[in-house]
Amino acid sequence: MGLTRRGFLERLGLAGGTSAVYLGMEALGLLNAPPASAEPFALPPGSGRGRKVVILGAGIAGLVCAYELDKAGWDVIVLEARDRVAGRVWTIRGGDRVVQTGRPDQVCGFGEGLYLNAGAARIPTAHHNILGYAKRLGVPIEAMVNSNRAAKWDFGGRTVEGRQAINDVRGRVSELLGKAVNRGALDQELSAGDKSAMLQFLGAYGEIGEGGVYTPLGRSGYDELPGGYTQSGRPRAPMALTDILGNRGWILPLLFEEIFDQQAPMFQPVGGMDRIADALYRPVAARVRLNAPVAAIRRRGEGVRIEHGPGRQHTDADYCICTLPVNLLSRIPNDFSSAKREAMRDIPYLPSVKVGFESRRFWEDEGVYGGLAWTDSPNENIIYPSDRWHSPKGVLVTAYTAGWIDQNNAPRFTAMSHEERFRICRESIERLHPGRSGELERPVTVAWALTPWSEGVGPIHPDWFPPVRPGRYTELLRPEGPIVFAGEHLSYVPFWQEGAALSAHEAMKVLTAQARDRAMPPSAAAA
Amino acid sequence: MGLTRRGFLERLGLAGGTSAVYLGMEALGLLNAPPASAEPFALPPGSGRGRKVVILGAGIAGLVCAYELDKAGWDVIVLEARDRVAGRVWTIRGGDRVVQTGRPDQVCGFGEGLYLNAGAARIPTAHHNILGYAKRLGVPIEAMVNSNRAAKWDFGGRTVEGRQAINDVRGRVSELLGKAVNRGALDQELSAGDKSAMLQFLGAYGEIGEGGVYTPLGRSGYDELPGGYTQSGRPRAPMALTDILGNRGWILPLLFEEIFDQQAPMFQPVGGMDRIADALYRPVAARVRLNAPVAAIRRRGEGVRIEHGPGRQHTDADYCICTLPVNLLSRIPNDFSSAKREAMRDIPYLPSVKVGFESRRFWEDEGVYGGLAWTDSPNENIIYPSDRWHSPKGVLVTAYTAGWIDQNNAPRFTAMSHEERFRICRESIERLHPGRSGELERPVTVAWALTPWSEGVGPIHPDWFPPVRPGRYTELLRPEGPIVFAGEHLSYVPFWQEGAALSAHEAMKVLTAQARDRAMPPSAAAA
Repeated sequence: MGLTRRGFLERLGLAGGTSAVYLGMEALGLLNAPPASAEPFALPPGSGRGRKVVILGAGIAGLVCAYELDKAGWDVIVLEARDRVAGRVWTIRGGDRVVQTGRPDQVCGFGEGLYLNAGAARIPTAHHNILGYAKRLGVPIEAMVNSNRAAKWDFGGRTVEGRQAINDVRGRVSELLGKAVNRGALDQELSAGDKSAMLQFLGAYGEIGEGGVYTPLGRSGYDELPGGYTQSGRPRAPMALTDILGNRGWILPLLFEEIFDQQAPMFQPVGGMDRIADALYRPVAARVRLNAPVAAIRRRGEGVRIEHGPGRQHTDADYCICTLPVNLLSRIPNDFSSAKREAMRDIPYLPSVKVGFESRRFWEDEGVYGGLAWTDSPNENIIYPSDRWHSPKGVLVTAYTAGWIDQNNAPRFTAMSHEERFRICRESIERLHPGRSGELERPVTVAWALTPWSEGVGPIHPDWFPPVRPGRYTELLRPEGPIVFAGEHLSYVPFWQEGAALSAHEAMKVLTAQARDRAMPPSAAAA
Repeated sequence: MGLTRRGFLERLGLAGGTSAVYLGMEALGLLNAPPASAEPFALPPGSGRGRKVVILGAGIAGLVCAYELDKAGWDVIVLEARDRVAGRVWTIRGGDRVVQTGRPDQVCGFGEGLYLNAGAARIPTAHHNILGYAKRLGVPIEAMVNSNRAAKWDFGGRTVEGRQAINDVRGRVSELLGKAVNRGALDQELSAGDKSAMLQFLGAYGEIGEGGVYTPLGRSGYDELPGGYTQSGRPRAPMALTDILGNRGWILPLLFEEIFDQQAPMFQPVGGMDRIADALYRPVAARVRLNAPVAAIRRRGEGVRIEHGPGRQHTDADYCICTLPVNLLSRIPNDFSSAKREAMRDIPYLPSVKVGFESRRFWEDEGVYGGLAWTDSPNENIIYPSDRWHSPKGVLVTAYTAGWIDQNNAPRFTAMSHEERFRICRESIERLHPGRSGELERPVTVAWALTPWSEGVGPIHPDWFPPVRPGRYTELLRPEGPIVFAGEHLSYVPFWQEGAALSAHEAMKVLTAQARDRAMPPSAAAA
């Protein structure tokens, strides 16, 4: 990591002067490494001094920039292609029109108070910037149940409760390890005392019973629940190791809740995920122009000129923050360096798909309150609603297809007609909840690849996957003169609102340093 | 189990006639085994026919009986020793007086809307009877965060996040098992194909990196979080196996969320756990006599006579449902059989203790939203509030001492003065949240062993621990003529509201059968 950072700084040093290195260091976070649980981000009050900045895109990154820069005294204008703000934070309610390229339009038929979070749908507690905005802006939040031991997994024609899969795996792994320890296979690693401690530990960890055999007594669920008087409960028989190893599709559901950004507890704004974006938008609404797609990004003197719709217009500004997804940005005429243009090319975006149905909350009658079901059917992931418990209706997300189980599922599901997706979802729900699929009503579906002004939800280019990312990514971070860049794709929390907010904060630090730098006399800049 | 049931039936058959066997079968659930996820319990409408039943105790079991029997046309009277209903469901709010035997009285100083659930505090989704009452009675519920990977464990002077402990254990166990598999130690159990599948599985399950070494990349948390631009995040270094094995106290926190009744998601009524009891109470409030402790339980003809306070009174009835905790019941003069009196003797009750402080919600600033912290200090378990997220204040349960970590803690903590408990809690919170213990205000504490009309929270007699319970337990289920028994201690879900409700349902089935039986001519009873 040190080398990469140094390399980046050296390159900037060659290309510009001292000030470029300074900006580079700021951009790299070397001057202001934010602590894990920081004070809320804030620019120095009045630091904008009326300088004009045009922000491209009113998703979370753009809205965070607009909100913070406006507060700091910048003259802000935001250009947004859609007729709404919030970008990939898209909460669909009754009456909303859903436009998809190459598919018939849908008008959402949900009843009052029901919604589908078609994009962002959860907030982990580690995302303290997004939670911080919810808190500061007075957006009520509620727990979003992301882990549910009662939700089922439907793989290879066999349906089991998550609690059985998770605990049977732990049990069988512990059982095998206990055998190996007893056979002396780990005497290199374990002293006699360690062995005894390990066997005792495994006994509790893996519910190991007599003879070293995994013997679940409740963790994996019951065939008959414990009850009153003499109903002692019949714990389920455990699955065999071969059943577990044969189920390759289980690995993601087994570990999903241990992915750092998916760990319990999770949260959601009461009433829909777009409430946070709305709260950021409200104070700057007068500064946001909707239906204003960017047609070209030009340098003009020390500043920028943005050509945009509706019609043929342009907006001039001293600075620009560009938050457009890189897949779209790469197609917009610009004056960027050839290195930037090269780095933007051919970055594919994940084509995830969701389907939501309004329904009576039959799943709660069966003891499933929120959480996720999983399946090897192309709908992959079912999300039970975590709002308005025990109310008559809810929106069941019957598909969140993103390659969780098979990376081919997302493009395959995208390619289907709406009716094909609905049929697959109904069949899947019928397997998970026999007799209930007929209660699914008023479906709506969003394929992000077919969604104008998005065409996907985030970068799936290999350069985004290594622990420290190679040159293409760092090239995209580099300002183009007065144009700085933000968006979830310019963070190590990609796909998340938090990443968008974090990148926005970094971009604003660069912007602030640039503005300071431009105001400084040349002697000071060289010091 | 079959033998035990048969033995019980045979004993009943010897003691009584055919009808006693019938009642026994009903009591044993052999006639009406309730399905796991049943229709809500209900007695046939009008089946009470105005018969009079006196219910002893207005905890959940007594309230469920009163609510259901009143609906079914019984003439119900409930006798309750306390000046409130709900028993061990005790929600303490500002202004409430907390009386403890041998300790100074406390008056709770909490602000508006704040409460401590001193007793029952969570509802798992498997408890469909309690959730069912919440739903039917219109009691709003919200998620109670019981699992939180960000909450900390403070053992042996070392504080780690739950996510590190849980994932490092999985990683080290997987690493060891991988070595054993590679060494051929499990060739008896695993074919060549299984071995390869197992190694691949363990790689993902345990985050196994190069050379078969556990290499956490985020599940266990970060020293520096992933951020915007170039902040790639620094995953925490994993703990050594010896650190894990040395920490015996970890075993309960490691597996707590896998205990069947503690599995995510959990729920709580909005506003305090007593809301459900209140909702059961409201329709029968006129039938409940508070401050009416039972002084004696007598048979009188075919019916019962209950002597009780205040003063010297008695209430006669056709039937009685006795829901008193067996530790208290054993001291009340009665006409029970000698077998019953013998079975009731010397059943100790768990002396658990809670402490709650009002406080600014500093834990949310640190990213801890709900969930449980654990410690080897005598306060054992900390519960962060799951209500009113982001509001200024909350009630932090700084101690839930019940022998989770060391069975001596509960009696030791009980024996302390209130101030000693508060001091231990403040020190524990200071270790978990340095600099914050000074924000803890207005403490209140409840030791259940010192709480009049409870003297503990549930039976810890060894007869309650086996999968199927021996004679003492089944003796306690046996009706004494027109007196039938209920309470959490007469269920396989002891300590829980659900167990109280389930036992109440069983008791009402027996009562209904008895009433039917008494109305039948002798010839029909013999058929």
